[in-house]
Amino acid sequence: MAGNTFGDIFRVTTYGESHGKGIGAVIDGCPSGIGLSSQDFDSEMGRRRPGLGAFDTPRKEEDRVEILSGVFEGLTTGAPISLFISNKDARSKSYEILKALFRPGHADYTYFKKYGHFDFHGAGRYSGRETAARVAAGVIAGKILDTKGIMVDAYTIELAGIRAESFAMDKIIGSPLYCPDPKAEALMTEALKKAKEEGDSVGGIVEIKVVGCPPGLGEPAFDKLDADLAKAVMSVGAVKGIEIGAGFEAARLKGSENNDQITPKGFKTNRAGGILGGISNGDEIIIRAAVKPIPSIGIEQDTIDREGRPSKIRMTGRFDVCAIPRIISVLEAMVKITIADHYLRFSAMKALKGE
Amino acid sequence: MAGNTFGDIFRVTTYGESHGKGIGAVIDGCPSGIGLSSQDFDSEMGRRRPGLGAFDTPRKEEDRVEILSGVFEGLTTGAPISLFISNKDARSKSYEILKALFRPGHADYTYFKKYGHFDFHGAGRYSGRETAARVAAGVIAGKILDTKGIMVDAYTIELAGIRAESFAMDKIIGSPLYCPDPKAEALMTEALKKAKEEGDSVGGIVEIKVVGCPPGLGEPAFDKLDADLAKAVMSVGAVKGIEIGAGFEAARLKGSENNDQITPKGFKTNRAGGILGGISNGDEIIIRAAVKPIPSIGIEQDTIDREGRPSKIRMTGRFDVCAIPRIISVLEAMVKITIADHYLRFSAMKALKGE
Amino acid sequence: MAGNTFGDIFRVTTYGESHGKGIGAVIDGCPSGIGLSSQDFDSEMGRRRPGLGAFDTPRKEEDRVEILSGVFEGLTTGAPISLFISNKDARSKSYEILKALFRPGHADYTYFKKYGHFDFHGAGRYSGRETAARVAAGVIAGKILDTKGIMVDAYTIELAGIRAESFAMDKIIGSPLYCPDPKAEALMTEALKKAKEEGDSVGGIVEIKVVGCPPGLGEPAFDKLDADLAKAVMSVGAVKGIEIGAGFEAARLKGSENNDQITPKGFKTNRAGGILGGISNGDEIIIRAAVKPIPSIGIEQDTIDREGRPSKIRMTGRFDVCAIPRIISVLEAMVKITIADHYLRFSAMKALKGE
Amino acid sequence: MAGNTFGDIFRVTTYGESHGKGIGAVIDGCPSGIGLSSQDFDSEMGRRRPGLGAFDTPRKEEDRVEILSGVFEGLTTGAPISLFISNKDARSKSYEILKALFRPGHADYTYFKKYGHFDFHGAGRYSGRETAARVAAGVIAGKILDTKGIMVDAYTIELAGIRAESFAMDKIIGSPLYCPDPKAEALMTEALKKAKEEGDSVGGIVEIKVVGCPPGLGEPAFDKLDADLAKAVMSVGAVKGIEIGAGFEAARLKGSENNDQITPKGFKTNRAGGILGGISNGDEIIIRAAVKPIPSIGIEQDTIDREGRPSKIRMTGRFDVCAIPRIISVLEAMVKITIADHYLRFSAMKALKGE
Repeated sequence: MAGNTFGDIFRVTTYGESHGKGIGAVIDGCPSGIGLSSQDFDSEMGRRRPGLGAFDTPRKEEDRVEILSGVFEGLTTGAPISLFISNKDARSKSYEILKALFRPGHADYTYFKKYGHFDFHGAGRYSGRETAARVAAGVIAGKILDTKGIMVDAYTIELAGIRAESFAMDKIIGSPLYCPDPKAEALMTEALKKAKEEGDSVGGIVEIKVVGCPPGLGEPAFDKLDADLAKAVMSVGAVKGIEIGAGFEAARLKGSENNDQITPKGFKTNRAGGILGGISNGDEIIIRAAVKPIPSIGIEQDTIDREGRPSKIRMTGRFDVCAIPRIISVLEAMVKITIADHYLRFSAMKALKGE
Repeated sequence: MAGNTFGDIFRVTTYGESHGKGIGAVIDGCPSGIGLSSQDFDSEMGRRRPGLGAFDTPRKEEDRVEILSGVFEGLTTGAPISLFISNKDARSKSYEILKALFRPGHADYTYFKKYGHFDFHGAGRYSGRETAARVAAGVIAGKILDTKGIMVDAYTIELAGIRAESFAMDKIIGSPLYCPDPKAEALMTEALKKAKEEGDSVGGIVEIKVVGCPPGLGEPAFDKLDADLAKAVMSVGAVKGIEIGAGFEAARLKGSENNDQITPKGFKTNRAGGILGGISNGDEIIIRAAVKPIPSIGIEQDTIDREGRPSKIRMTGRFDVCAIPRIISVLEAMVKITIADHYLRFSAMKALKGE
Repeated sequence: MAGNTFGDIFRVTTYGESHGKGIGAVIDGCPSGIGLSSQDFDSEMGRRRPGLGAFDTPRKEEDRVEILSGVFEGLTTGAPISLFISNKDARSKSYEILKALFRPGHADYTYFKKYGHFDFHGAGRYSGRETAARVAAGVIAGKILDTKGIMVDAYTIELAGIRAESFAMDKIIGSPLYCPDPKAEALMTEALKKAKEEGDSVGGIVEIKVVGCPPGLGEPAFDKLDADLAKAVMSVGAVKGIEIGAGFEAARLKGSENNDQITPKGFKTNRAGGILGGISNGDEIIIRAAVKPIPSIGIEQDTIDREGRPSKIRMTGRFDVCAIPRIISVLEAMVKITIADHYLRFSAMKALKGE
Repeated sequence: MAGNTFGDIFRVTTYGESHGKGIGAVIDGCPSGIGLSSQDFDSEMGRRRPGLGAFDTPRKEEDRVEILSGVFEGLTTGAPISLFISNKDARSKSYEILKALFRPGHADYTYFKKYGHFDFHGAGRYSGRETAARVAAGVIAGKILDTKGIMVDAYTIELAGIRAESFAMDKIIGSPLYCPDPKAEALMTEALKKAKEEGDSVGGIVEIKVVGCPPGLGEPAFDKLDADLAKAVMSVGAVKGIEIGAGFEAARLKGSENNDQITPKGFKTNRAGGILGGISNGDEIIIRAAVKPIPSIGIEQDTIDREGRPSKIRMTGRFDVCAIPRIISVLEAMVKITIADHYLRFSAMKALKGE
């Protein structure tokens, strides 16, 4: 009922909050025999870590993932895998202001309404920190997909209204913004700089591509592959929209334009984004997520306090200007978890049919 | 694992296929004491029924919902409610062509890949017919919401690229396209007529608005209210994108523009679409769904047959030109089911805290 | 939350009550390709039907199972299977007395306390009638097990304190009491006759044997095979105890006596009842269920009415003297459902490991 | 699918194995506002710890429970509670023998058949160590029950065939065997000593009593309170049977003897064991569990090795002679978890009805 578990066969439960000892994930349903060590998490956890980019907040979290169970002599055993990440830098005091004013665009208001005063402080589940546990779980999902030749990549296609025009996937690696278009990235960097100077923030659009996914993943009614991907992606805090393939553009096309005609070599186009009737069609799966601007800004805004009295708020301290690129690894993780879960469901279904 | 159930406390399981005896839904977890009779379903089922609009396929389904269990002397009892809708017009023979060619844009291909030849015929779960069971379940969800003063309304804001400019909600009732802008609707009707003449089809965008929802619905991690709404809406066949509030537009706004500032009277704007941090904030919840054009068109397209040999296909017979307006009631139903489920979860959580 | 679903991969949801249109089951997760027709249910439904034995109540229910979905041309399709059984003989009026007095040993009191006045009447879920839906679902589970060479048989080993001494399994067929010992059965029949004359009722013990189950079924922690069997069997109304293998007798044995020693040909004994550490060991699985005497008796007893005032009650009309043999098919069904579910889980797990 | 989670609203997921870093439990769904500190676990963990009794194995585990999340300033927050217990004494080498021979009565054989060679070592989930996580989770369940005035107590009513004849509940505290009959306990102690000298082991029967449980807990169909209790208790490794109230004895009683007649002051007897129709009736809930003798014995037995070759095995080292009393705290924990979960379900149901 409390909603801290995601997935059907590959089930991820996360726990932990920013003010406590740490955060973690328990993965129940991971097949045995998959190589896994603590080091496997380092590179993904590093991507999610703040304080790397020029525009990121310099808080130093060193996110080492500890494997508490489910691995023996370097291989998963089929038993639940428990992952734990210590909080190094709880600093709960710096959030004193929260006791007084609701920050516009933040979940302060809704958590206060849902949980009341105490839980609001205590739960701390809406901290971005919870997503570190997802990234860790995503690493294991990624390992399952690796063995099947399925690759998941997320990259920035729009930031501060600047759209990538070229898609050189090899440019993503090494790009601070994970942008496949170096020209666009230069403009995006300028826009980030300008927003920072203004004390403002910006949003963007992340595209996630799944390559190598076989046809057949997804269930007919509610657990369509795109439905579960939509939930997975929308469950990441800053996301306000999600598209598959042509997405909202499909609403403006005619059937003759939007249909992907079929040839013996495959689909001529991929406006479906790799999913038809909720089931993967073997083509690349294309997902786009709209990421809203960071709500913490250095510009004065109207708000109210806990008693409902009007007030002004201007965030000080150092905040990220944009959830991108840090959100990239989280979105990638959620897509990996979803695809891995559906891959296992599909494999199980085939086995049960005797194939 | 097979994904035919949706919801946590208010659990909807659907079954049935277009070629069989009928379709149905079992709702487990509906509170007792809610007035319910067979007649309550008629108006919603009528909205979903084909053959009413000038541009709809004239197949005559008469969808009467039969209550098989869970109601006594006109009130729900708390026991599972079983709803059944007979198939009057199975006509499985008219789908003979499916044995030979994959229809572009349809799920023929993916179902064949997933299930193989036999199940492909038998399952028939990807027929739009399955959504009738959802509409029926949505009527019960709507009854729960009614008692709480929560209203859910879906309407057409774009069709064939024509956007509604005015939003007179009272115009929706009586509008064949459920469009709040009569001028736009006239143009939409023209576009539908033209597409029909061309043997083509069009898509559009449906907005769903939830009015009267209290703050506090939604869970912190995976079961965020917007995440569950995204899954609910994306699980409807023709939907390729979903937005909450400003949606993709939020990605282009600055933090200072996108944040909804707070005053003692409430939020100054509603770019959040009524949801912050995955939890309802008491404002109107605004969801938009991108509906792709109907894939069945009278224009010749390339395809392949079951053996992979190239072929041409041109659909004959009568098909809908647009999934709108029939999809309106389905989207409304899925939103009602999701909100009702989260309302019950929220109420239960408060009760367990002793509030 | 409302608990009307059982199973993990092979999920059975039942609905319906004795006073309504009928009862039913939806099975989600049944593999495709299994032959199934309406006739397949007749013999099992007949076993559960009252009015056959000399000591059974003569109410005439004709329980025909209608397949509403999930079967095409005689084979399951993998889509949810919906089964429905009409109520022919609702006779809600004959239960008028229930409005006034709580019947000792019945669930009247607890349902009234749980649901209050209205739901008490309406829910009607605690009628033995609900078990007909389980028997129907068990038929499908049995079909899955048949293809794997797994047989489930239930039989009476004790009735009214009379214990079967010989176990000629071929005697069960044709035995009105499903007793493997004809001599004991003769005495049991006498005891039933005597109890009937006295207006009293008796209980007994049913043993359920699973033959042909491979080793490996069951999960390590909570979903041990014996734990799920215990839940399955205990969820049948009249059952007050369950044993596996030596059961309570094992508590009196020494380790040297209770351990089943192992030889190249298999286990020397089967005190474990085919389950070790919650996982099947390949030997016969032996389950015993203690069935309490029917609480409806023609002997005056103390009770109270809805307002708590003292009263006397003596049930008139015709009631079963013993839940055996009718409960036999229900217990068999629950064991079949549990074993089929775990078989599918085991097969899926092996497939996911790449075996 | 992998079965490491128990409960519906109060959901307990356990992880960890004897050879790894430790074991743990994540509890999702615990209401907020419950006082909880690390010290709260000490006394229960101490009861489960080996090496205390004269007949227990002297392995020294010091089981301190660390709270990793879900508690703020001493109160639960409603977020998932993560509990962790380090393994101090892994000693995986002492289990070398397992590589060669299957120990009769142990799960070696079934795990090998289920998981194959590798997982068998790695999983280690069938170690009794897993139950420490259950005891920890049970402490939290117990705190919920405390606030409602519900008490759960487990005690030994039979050991090595010696039955307690008197039931002085105050004698349980301080009794090494948790036996309410000091005379019987003296005989049990003798029997334990004798079994130890013979290198043999013994079993027994534990009774668990729930006092103060209100009427109404339990769901009509599959999730009957006794069904869930049966699963909970049977999911503890050494348990081979479970009874409610009169249990197997009820099978030998007549209806007139077994029915608990009702008076304005309550039930005259409690043969139902506090549960009627799967729902608590407000009386004491009485559960009995049959505990088999420890399979590790110092007496030579026949067995086979991994290749199926015949062999002899005689366990050396120090082993417990009886699972009692250590199992007492585990059984108590599982009952507490089940009752707490159903209490929350009942409270939620009432709240949803508007009571």
